[in-house]
Amino acid sequence: MSEPISERTHNTPAFLFDLDGTLIDSVYQHVLAWKRALESCGVELAVWKIHRRIGMSGGLFVNALLRELGHPLDPEQTQRMQTLHGDFFAEIADQVRPLPGATDLLHTLTELEVPWAIATSGHMRSARHGLKMLGVLDGPAPIITRDLVRYAKPDPDLFLAAAEKLDHPIQNAWVIGDSIWDLLAAQRARALGIGVRSGGYGGDELREAGAFRVYDDPADILRHLDELGVRGT
Amino acid sequence: MSEPISERTHNTPAFLFDLDGTLIDSVYQHVLAWKRALESCGVELAVWKIHRRIGMSGGLFVNALLRELGHPLDPEQTQRMQTLHGDFFAEIADQVRPLPGATDLLHTLTELEVPWAIATSGHMRSARHGLKMLGVLDGPAPIITRDLVRYAKPDPDLFLAAAEKLDHPIQNAWVIGDSIWDLLAAQRARALGIGVRSGGYGGDELREAGAFRVYDDPADILRHLDELGVRGT
Repeated sequence: MSEPISERTHNTPAFLFDLDGTLIDSVYQHVLAWKRALESCGVELAVWKIHRRIGMSGGLFVNALLRELGHPLDPEQTQRMQTLHGDFFAEIADQVRPLPGATDLLHTLTELEVPWAIATSGHMRSARHGLKMLGVLDGPAPIITRDLVRYAKPDPDLFLAAAEKLDHPIQNAWVIGDSIWDLLAAQRARALGIGVRSGGYGGDELREAGAFRVYDDPADILRHLDELGVRGT
Repeated sequence: MSEPISERTHNTPAFLFDLDGTLIDSVYQHVLAWKRALESCGVELAVWKIHRRIGMSGGLFVNALLRELGHPLDPEQTQRMQTLHGDFFAEIADQVRPLPGATDLLHTLTELEVPWAIATSGHMRSARHGLKMLGVLDGPAPIITRDLVRYAKPDPDLFLAAAEKLDHPIQNAWVIGDSIWDLLAAQRARALGIGVRSGGYGGDELREAGAFRVYDDPADILRHLDELGVRGT
């Protein structure tokens, strides 16, 4: 960056959002779909441990779970689990809703000309339903999915790609996410992380992962936009 | 109690267990069943907020959720929600498993002649499946369900009734639970509360509710029984 720091820090920060658990209320359905997929492959794992890994890239997620069990890794089985997860999730995807305040928050940012984007560890195939529900599938805001980057969270690539698409410096962006993987990726990207409790994690876990601030959900962020450098609300 | 304190405190403490999220891995299924039940009655509530209320008595639970939404209370609707929850839960109850270490822990306590009981906010109708899975439905250990007491958690009645059935002083008992409602009830009963993370709550939430100690799950408790006054392991 060539502009002086004093100017840069006076620009409005960009908002880079995670999707599941941050804008749409889909985490618990994903958790139970993974539970069934793992069990179909002979892997018994408590549901809360699956919950704690949600938000990682699918491949890393399965590897992390199997490592916890001391299982050897088998790429074919990993692939099969991911396919089964997609199938089981599709069975209950109609139960998923936007989180309170999600569409309002995105509209407000757009109205105030605050740049924002969505960056999800999911593939477009599984994200499409949620994006449509939010009314942003064919909008102007950048949508970065797993298909577009080499490494998903907790690697920083998704958020870096989102900032690049916005042509906005990542050092002046918020990364908003419900999982510790979002917040770790935020740190690696040198953004600041905002945690939301709407994915079901405890505030302490989010703060321990480096959250600059923790809110309940998008509605709570919307009520506190002035804390996040957004003027005009 | 007439025995001197010095003797009483040298007796082995009794273990009073919650069921869902503490011995069986059923919390997330209950959460999604409640989500569907609430929505069927026109109540839209984010899943994580439902999760945070699980473990309360059904009636209090529904009241607390509706209060959060500012809805007026209607006893008929409350009853209907509880019935629907039971129906939706029954649809996915076959996905529920015992938590890691649960049956081992109960066996070990029995072998060491440590008194234990189960006290659940659920009715026998919904608890039966889990108790059967644990192999304790027709065993000698006391099982206290919602049907047997006037007030369920966070009131202390369930745990007080369990200690009474064991003929054991509540002041020398552990209350083991995954939700803050168990730990608040433990304090009101003047027992000490042990939190387990297997219901998906953060350790901080359990400690803030007064947990004397927090473990991952029953297997983790079994590995640390010596910390809890149990000798001979």
